[in-house]
Amino acid sequence: MSQFWSDVVAGLTPYVPGEQPKLPDLVKLNTNENPYPPSPRVLDAIRGELGDGLRLYPDPNADRLKAAIANRCGVAPTQVFVGNGSDEVLAHAFLGLLKHDAPLLFPDISYSFYPVYCGLYGIGWRAVPLTDSFEIRIEDYLDAPDCGGVVFPNPNAPTGRLLPRSEIERLLAGRPNQVVVVDEAYIDFAAESGNESAIGLVDRHPNLLVVQTLSKSRSLAGLRVGFAVGQVDLIEALERVKNSFNSYPLDRLAIAGAVAAIEDGAHFEATRQAVIRSRERLVEDMAALGFAVLPSAANFIFARHPERDAGELAAALRARSIIVRHFPQPRIEQFLRITIGNDAQCAALVAALGEILAA
Amino acid sequence: MSQFWSDVVAGLTPYVPGEQPKLPDLVKLNTNENPYPPSPRVLDAIRGELGDGLRLYPDPNADRLKAAIANRCGVAPTQVFVGNGSDEVLAHAFLGLLKHDAPLLFPDISYSFYPVYCGLYGIGWRAVPLTDSFEIRIEDYLDAPDCGGVVFPNPNAPTGRLLPRSEIERLLAGRPNQVVVVDEAYIDFAAESGNESAIGLVDRHPNLLVVQTLSKSRSLAGLRVGFAVGQVDLIEALERVKNSFNSYPLDRLAIAGAVAAIEDGAHFEATRQAVIRSRERLVEDMAALGFAVLPSAANFIFARHPERDAGELAAALRARSIIVRHFPQPRIEQFLRITIGNDAQCAALVAALGEILAA
Repeated sequence: MSQFWSDVVAGLTPYVPGEQPKLPDLVKLNTNENPYPPSPRVLDAIRGELGDGLRLYPDPNADRLKAAIANRCGVAPTQVFVGNGSDEVLAHAFLGLLKHDAPLLFPDISYSFYPVYCGLYGIGWRAVPLTDSFEIRIEDYLDAPDCGGVVFPNPNAPTGRLLPRSEIERLLAGRPNQVVVVDEAYIDFAAESGNESAIGLVDRHPNLLVVQTLSKSRSLAGLRVGFAVGQVDLIEALERVKNSFNSYPLDRLAIAGAVAAIEDGAHFEATRQAVIRSRERLVEDMAALGFAVLPSAANFIFARHPERDAGELAAALRARSIIVRHFPQPRIEQFLRITIGNDAQCAALVAALGEILAA
Repeated sequence: MSQFWSDVVAGLTPYVPGEQPKLPDLVKLNTNENPYPPSPRVLDAIRGELGDGLRLYPDPNADRLKAAIANRCGVAPTQVFVGNGSDEVLAHAFLGLLKHDAPLLFPDISYSFYPVYCGLYGIGWRAVPLTDSFEIRIEDYLDAPDCGGVVFPNPNAPTGRLLPRSEIERLLAGRPNQVVVVDEAYIDFAAESGNESAIGLVDRHPNLLVVQTLSKSRSLAGLRVGFAVGQVDLIEALERVKNSFNSYPLDRLAIAGAVAAIEDGAHFEATRQAVIRSRERLVEDMAALGFAVLPSAANFIFARHPERDAGELAAALRARSIIVRHFPQPRIEQFLRITIGNDAQCAALVAALGEILAA
């Protein structure tokens, strides 16, 4: 605390990201990174951009990237917003579209950045409990007496559970005067991502904003690119906030790399399917070890062992150089969130858990 | 306007950056980019980082970059904050350190993003007129009855005028309970930048935050890296805001490139001196054409012709594929802000102006 801080800063509880340890030979399954490298076309595109041109500002509107995303998603470029990771996109959406007199609603178990944004921008909020089986129940949002907007991840994090698109549409239709932000960081790991994404609902629902990221399914967590799709006036709100914050959030290399990533559909499909296959195998292996695993449509699983303390399991894994994420918070303190690694990493995890459980 | 927008968005007047035209063969002297390329070591460092590692998140604290900046500036790494361009750093400083009950003070002619940040974050502000010769007069800030903080660029933009460090120190001592942000985007183009920067005052003044950027003197506008230096509790305020907004504002390539840029002192010194030499020559040439040019310590000059309308001059230059910046606002509507190009660009500018004035 300091006399120089604003009241806002003094009241903040910042987000704590998953650890990024600088140790070699770690099996890092704690921050939902993709085990497969980005498309070689991404590296080529960045190499092509890497030169004296770095002395010049990037395109503040990143028009090439918006065009590529629009083409991929079947929308107009004016329906696309891009930012420095989906966290920045979400931050602008909170300030521009979710700050109203009535409280914002989101699940009690969800992305833990949401209440942090609310603290930053002075947004009132209320947590809506998931069901006992950790599902989002749309009635709870439709029936809420007071609602300034809704945000949730789909698949939800850290549970991995997918809400069917028909349920999202029911919410959109039943809450036509509130913005609903669907945070699809992990949607591409749903088996039928094209059919599950809410982007297909954008043209019918002016209150829908869909946020996605290149960090997970495009293997580009290190490049920091996210985007949102919605009708033009929602996108305009985000542009207004962005242009009142930072004219050039995406650098030249990030724009070039992101365009190539979006355009390489074959690499995307191959790596996405590989992660899905590994997930299915891991779920079976974990079940064989006695874990209860929630149904996952993401690149992680959420699992608990009925007889072993999750915090102790995480510590025992860490002692074997395997890092997973444990959230010591009510309702989920006995779960581990485990990123889907490559097959060798998954095998190392299963072997280590086998040893730990046998000890 | 839309029913879905927050009140904040509806009230915003976003910043308008200088045009980034996508035309070939332009003499682009409108956004204060460096005419010289970045250090070759920057490109090498980025090439070294460019690989499968992009699938992993960057270091959220960019420790390597903070260490390099700290080393260069003679401060501790805990006295350094880094962000996605100095615009992002400034935005966080406005919300975290300059939002108080009393109004923020800044010059009436200054970086036009300042009132935009105030609009975004609901910060009251008052513009303090520069003197008739476009200088900052410290008494105006010391004597102000009501002051929640002070921010100004040094050298000021778009005037280019430098405030001596002794004057800054007088302000810091006379306003010990308010944060003073000195925005040194252009300080490295002062002849003796090391002696003019306020970074040397940080250890004596807990209320001082100095902001710099790699966009100008390090030729990296396209990479988006800025930083701030101050005492630990000011830096902590920025970290708290940053960690409530976006955990990973700098991507892996930007961190690697920025470290190399900071470490290549020889390239920095050579290009900085080249720009200063070109500026001195350009000032003479402009004077010979009849222009009045304010004394500049930046990589641009601010000039007016006593007999010619600045807007018409800008349009005539544009017709010759030379772009400069004209601000149609009170007091400065008869000035042109002209970036210092390389010698060929400066010569093209002078030749074109000669033709226009003779016509």
